[in-house]
Amino acid sequence: MTKKIILDCDPGHDDAIAILLAHGNPEIELLAVTTVVGNQTLEKVTRNALGMAKVANIVGVPFAAGCVRPLVRDIEIAPDVHGESGLDGPELPEPTLELDSRHAVDLIIETIMSHPPKTVTIVPTGGLTNIAMAARKEPKIVERVKEVVLMGGGYHVGNWSAVAEFNIKIDPEAAHIVFNEKWPLTMVGLDLTHQALATPEVVEKITKVGTKPAKFVLELLECFGKMYKKAQGFDYPPVHDPCAVAYVIDPKVMTTQKVPVDIELTGTLTLGMTVADFRNPPEPDCHTQVAVKLDHTYFWDLIVDALERIGEVDYDK
Amino acid sequence: MTKKIILDCDPGHDDAIAILLAHGNPEIELLAVTTVVGNQTLEKVTRNALGMAKVANIVGVPFAAGCVRPLVRDIEIAPDVHGESGLDGPELPEPTLELDSRHAVDLIIETIMSHPPKTVTIVPTGGLTNIAMAARKEPKIVERVKEVVLMGGGYHVGNWSAVAEFNIKIDPEAAHIVFNEKWPLTMVGLDLTHQALATPEVVEKITKVGTKPAKFVLELLECFGKMYKKAQGFDYPPVHDPCAVAYVIDPKVMTTQKVPVDIELTGTLTLGMTVADFRNPPEPDCHTQVAVKLDHTYFWDLIVDALERIGEVDYDK
Amino acid sequence: MTKKIILDCDPGHDDAIAILLAHGNPEIELLAVTTVVGNQTLEKVTRNALGMAKVANIVGVPFAAGCVRPLVRDIEIAPDVHGESGLDGPELPEPTLELDSRHAVDLIIETIMSHPPKTVTIVPTGGLTNIAMAARKEPKIVERVKEVVLMGGGYHVGNWSAVAEFNIKIDPEAAHIVFNEKWPLTMVGLDLTHQALATPEVVEKITKVGTKPAKFVLELLECFGKMYKKAQGFDYPPVHDPCAVAYVIDPKVMTTQKVPVDIELTGTLTLGMTVADFRNPPEPDCHTQVAVKLDHTYFWDLIVDALERIGEVDYDK
Amino acid sequence: MTKKIILDCDPGHDDAIAILLAHGNPEIELLAVTTVVGNQTLEKVTRNALGMAKVANIVGVPFAAGCVRPLVRDIEIAPDVHGESGLDGPELPEPTLELDSRHAVDLIIETIMSHPPKTVTIVPTGGLTNIAMAARKEPKIVERVKEVVLMGGGYHVGNWSAVAEFNIKIDPEAAHIVFNEKWPLTMVGLDLTHQALATPEVVEKITKVGTKPAKFVLELLECFGKMYKKAQGFDYPPVHDPCAVAYVIDPKVMTTQKVPVDIELTGTLTLGMTVADFRNPPEPDCHTQVAVKLDHTYFWDLIVDALERIGEVDYDK
Repeated sequence: MTKKIILDCDPGHDDAIAILLAHGNPEIELLAVTTVVGNQTLEKVTRNALGMAKVANIVGVPFAAGCVRPLVRDIEIAPDVHGESGLDGPELPEPTLELDSRHAVDLIIETIMSHPPKTVTIVPTGGLTNIAMAARKEPKIVERVKEVVLMGGGYHVGNWSAVAEFNIKIDPEAAHIVFNEKWPLTMVGLDLTHQALATPEVVEKITKVGTKPAKFVLELLECFGKMYKKAQGFDYPPVHDPCAVAYVIDPKVMTTQKVPVDIELTGTLTLGMTVADFRNPPEPDCHTQVAVKLDHTYFWDLIVDALERIGEVDYDK
Repeated sequence: MTKKIILDCDPGHDDAIAILLAHGNPEIELLAVTTVVGNQTLEKVTRNALGMAKVANIVGVPFAAGCVRPLVRDIEIAPDVHGESGLDGPELPEPTLELDSRHAVDLIIETIMSHPPKTVTIVPTGGLTNIAMAARKEPKIVERVKEVVLMGGGYHVGNWSAVAEFNIKIDPEAAHIVFNEKWPLTMVGLDLTHQALATPEVVEKITKVGTKPAKFVLELLECFGKMYKKAQGFDYPPVHDPCAVAYVIDPKVMTTQKVPVDIELTGTLTLGMTVADFRNPPEPDCHTQVAVKLDHTYFWDLIVDALERIGEVDYDK
Repeated sequence: MTKKIILDCDPGHDDAIAILLAHGNPEIELLAVTTVVGNQTLEKVTRNALGMAKVANIVGVPFAAGCVRPLVRDIEIAPDVHGESGLDGPELPEPTLELDSRHAVDLIIETIMSHPPKTVTIVPTGGLTNIAMAARKEPKIVERVKEVVLMGGGYHVGNWSAVAEFNIKIDPEAAHIVFNEKWPLTMVGLDLTHQALATPEVVEKITKVGTKPAKFVLELLECFGKMYKKAQGFDYPPVHDPCAVAYVIDPKVMTTQKVPVDIELTGTLTLGMTVADFRNPPEPDCHTQVAVKLDHTYFWDLIVDALERIGEVDYDK
Repeated sequence: MTKKIILDCDPGHDDAIAILLAHGNPEIELLAVTTVVGNQTLEKVTRNALGMAKVANIVGVPFAAGCVRPLVRDIEIAPDVHGESGLDGPELPEPTLELDSRHAVDLIIETIMSHPPKTVTIVPTGGLTNIAMAARKEPKIVERVKEVVLMGGGYHVGNWSAVAEFNIKIDPEAAHIVFNEKWPLTMVGLDLTHQALATPEVVEKITKVGTKPAKFVLELLECFGKMYKKAQGFDYPPVHDPCAVAYVIDPKVMTTQKVPVDIELTGTLTLGMTVADFRNPPEPDCHTQVAVKLDHTYFWDLIVDALERIGEVDYDK
């Protein structure tokens, strides 16, 4: 049985690859793609999402735009990591897909409520504004979804402050809402995604695919690698967002650990930290778990496989 | 020209009177009544709002239910002030009006966007969850509304903590959103509403109206008075919410002062305080003002006048 | 019986006048003058205190220097209010008095412990670092002092932020310590001291004294007035610190109200606010009170009287 | 050349062993032992320190009592870890050593200032109240000490909350002061000390020493082990405090890493966290480092060696 997902994203280099993975992998049924301010403005990330639909030849999936800004905090974007366009590097084709007329929040709610209980997984790979708004507008989605598998946070690693990660820190109140609702939640955080490096071996494998979408990914990785090198000193770029999709495809791609996680909203140094309490064994009703160790080969093989399945797409035509 | 308002409320004794004032006063065109968790659960306050529609014979106005809980904080209600039903005291008739099928947030957005710019005033008399959600879901409403006139806060007075008022403190993040959007905002806070006491003279005037709705109000005031006496030591109950409606009817019913106001989100003792900065003359673009001094006679005459205009309603039939 | 006080100050124009009042008034026995970083650096305010000893011909009173910085926060001084020297305006004579070799914290402790219980009043007119350190180093002083009468805070007025006053805000942790110890504490805050304006009538009265110290005060007031006009828009300068000394001389110089007061340590907008809870009558064991209304004439007559008693001092010789 | 240390402690089972190690190791010259509220009240931990002097036959070293409570927070002690006495388990002999008459804060200051610059190491193994007070009372000690080597905190591990350790959390403001002064500071935190387990092999080695002090240590470890098992689920107790002394004896007993560390003072979930920022290589002027990996054998051999050097002490006589 396929896994139905809603991908809520802010492409973003790694979000773009997450879209490709979700589309190309046969285990995943992509019900909707929604966008949210994050790596760049809503306008830019939405354009990027639609552009990726063209690159990957995605048809019949609704794409909808969501919130233009976080709940409480001012907008914070990441041009030093993703460039001015949010997807600097390859040349993105003009989108042909039209946006769904619904607000992302409504598309999320309607998608979940129109599918059988416990069948839809939400996969957020950006700030959690849309998901938090949906949970507040229609609280019934919380019981109805299968689970939430998100890229964000880090129990021992930060990137937007010493101990906070970008997706959580840009809208900590939204994250607090999402982490405190009682749906099963898997946090694929920096602890895990910093293992998902696009090493030369990875690049070589993708090169061999030889299609235009694969070439697009290579250009993404090249640009992303340069910016990560400059901004955070990484030798190879950590490709965060597809890790969450990979976990939905097959949880065996990483180890996870049950642990209560909450979001710090008032810390001077720790605002937006995903505070995991490892002191005791988790209570039986603990609904959160964190990703710990990645099977690097398996993960990248999933990406390569998805690209091969997508095949050639002559998206410039 | 009448003043078009959306009344967002959580009845609540004083919200109930605000509904009567808004309905009975000829200056006000009531476009919609929306409900939000606050004085009691959403279910109860929504039932109370519909019951008030029957008491006042309101027809043709959409009533819609909104958020069941605050954005971030846990639900906090006020049974010691409004009783178990949220409207203890008089016997509320069974509602006959049916709820609008839309979510309050959508009704608010659609009402504002379907009227000409700068014609609709939002009058929140409860927590600000619905309004904040609407502003985040459809940011265009901020430019489009005429103004926001809310009951809440207090620049020198608190009731839910030393320096915070109930409506703000139960959802401070929502209040932060609403106070920081650049629409014109009038804060009718405790500084003002603690002057709106239902004194024996007031009770006498309402008694003279002699209708069933007037009798309903008297029973409301009697119960509200007892609870305020017990909970907060007041001799006569301060009837907060109709003050905001009264300001919309005629700003001359109170004096106001322009001053920047922001919401404290992290204070240990001051969470939810409406922090007004009186140190300097306000900047020309200051979009907030606070209510200072009430014309007590004028205010209560507006209430009595509204009851007289509503006239007899045999709502038990 | 005279009132024995320790004056802990950071002169500062109004501190300087507080020293003159404490020295000149026959009700006060000045046991010690201690200095603390505040309006200017410790070095400067200590020099100013010693200079004032010469202006007022104070002998036989130990002067000791205390803390060079607040407990936790970075140093914040107020050159826009008190100038580069901390006492801009008149020419301060070279001090001849030598500093006591003890640290102010030890001088405070030893002074209190060497006098009979309940006979010594601490009068802080600067940040509360020294007093907090003394209370932590020798907790017995808390029971032993008669009371603490401090200039600082404001229950409805701020000057260093919308709702916080300079003396409290520069070391809120110290203030938290001092306000939470169970000694009787009178807060003479901005609510009161903004009534202590040096009006033209006041200036005229002081002019009539005709001595060099009185002339010194006039020059202080002239400079202070200019800086207050420029920095905070006051027509006449509020002369804060002597108000605390005046209260010790005769509590009838102002009205006070018992009310619990605590210090906000974590607020984003409210850090250092003196949060007074007026909602209920104070508990019988409430140990704090706030100054409310000043007898302006009486207050300034005390100042003039002190200057007359100090008489002529040829301090330049 | 020996290493001169001031041991500031709150015995406490592991503090007691730290005293024995500092006394028995020939590299260490113990200049003073000061006590501070922490594992138990000041009265109890001071009595325990003096008792340990008798157990170890320490003479000629001043012992002084310090602060009875943290700077700002209420007293929090740890009877579930150290028992009612603070040193439950073995029978502690009646102390014969008399306390130094000075306050610990003054003894610390005078000891540092009377020794040549950069010769004295402060070794705090309890809350940092005394050290913070000393740094504020005599700021010159900061430049004059050689370094601070403290047991406390944890960059990835907490015990008194999800992310905070007891010694830091009981007085976070003091910790903020100590970590922000520019002296070289080594944080021997839970990351390290949770490796210092008293395993059966360790117990066996200590048993072989065969002296009364060694037997005393065994009884300490037995009791400590039981309480740690019950309170925090450890199989063997982590013996925190001697690790800091061991680092002073020979830094090679553990690996360390330079990293900026600051203390969270406002977090709801993270109050008292020692926030280490590992994102970038440390700046050249980074004055803090954290302990990472313990040489378990070497560490416990130091303890055994110290016990052997202390030899037999017939402390009951």
